[in-house]
Amino acid sequence: MPLDPLPVDATEPSTACCPPLAGAPMTAEDAARTARSLKALADPARLRLLSIIAAHAGGEACVCDLTEPLGLSQPTVSHHLKVLTEAGFVTREKRGVWAYYTLAPAAVQELTAHLGTHLLHSRNA
Amino acid sequence: MPLDPLPVDATEPSTACCPPLAGAPMTAEDAARTARSLKALADPARLRLLSIIAAHAGGEACVCDLTEPLGLSQPTVSHHLKVLTEAGFVTREKRGVWAYYTLAPAAVQELTAHLGTHLLHSRNA
Repeated sequence: MPLDPLPVDATEPSTACCPPLAGAPMTAEDAARTARSLKALADPARLRLLSIIAAHAGGEACVCDLTEPLGLSQPTVSHHLKVLTEAGFVTREKRGVWAYYTLAPAAVQELTAHLGTHLLHSRNA
Repeated sequence: MPLDPLPVDATEPSTACCPPLAGAPMTAEDAARTARSLKALADPARLRLLSIIAAHAGGEACVCDLTEPLGLSQPTVSHHLKVLTEAGFVTREKRGVWAYYTLAPAAVQELTAHLGTHLLHSRNA
């Protein structure tokens, strides 16, 4: 007895013959959002700050630990940390007189996975 | 008979007790180079161009295929493609009257792997 055909939802694009493209083009909105995240990272001081926080125990560092290794003033370091916080790469918590910054690894992972999905050509596509 | 002790090279840091930090801080030179790569990507038009090239058959597209989807002039598209070429994300080949751009996936892979190495905290570190 032949099996019933699978129900077809006419509102969805057919994927019967071909797998979806692994490297689907980015939409304008997606590209604008991704470019904003990349711009937040695309600064040598911010990359070094984030990598120092990542290397600290627990992925957390006090702002007081971050000025000396970079040789920058505390206001400059605070400005860069504000950009990283607003972009979601770190979270900030005030304890006593110091602010502590914790890595938000999901933000880095999502960005790198997103670049991999859209900017790498699938040989099977 | 006791085994001879392993030779100790005093010029190498000891890793006997601890694995190396997965999230080692970036050096100033590394951060400067990585920021340059990220800046080349951190533009909505360039992200869309690269994702369109990645989605094309063979990861290659003619410049003539790239102006219409973005709604930008050919000089503007050519400028963005030049930035991507100089950053190593695509390679350019002239055939007849048109230039063809091919994705250089290793550049994207190296960048995302590098961010993962330095910006993600290892829970075991």
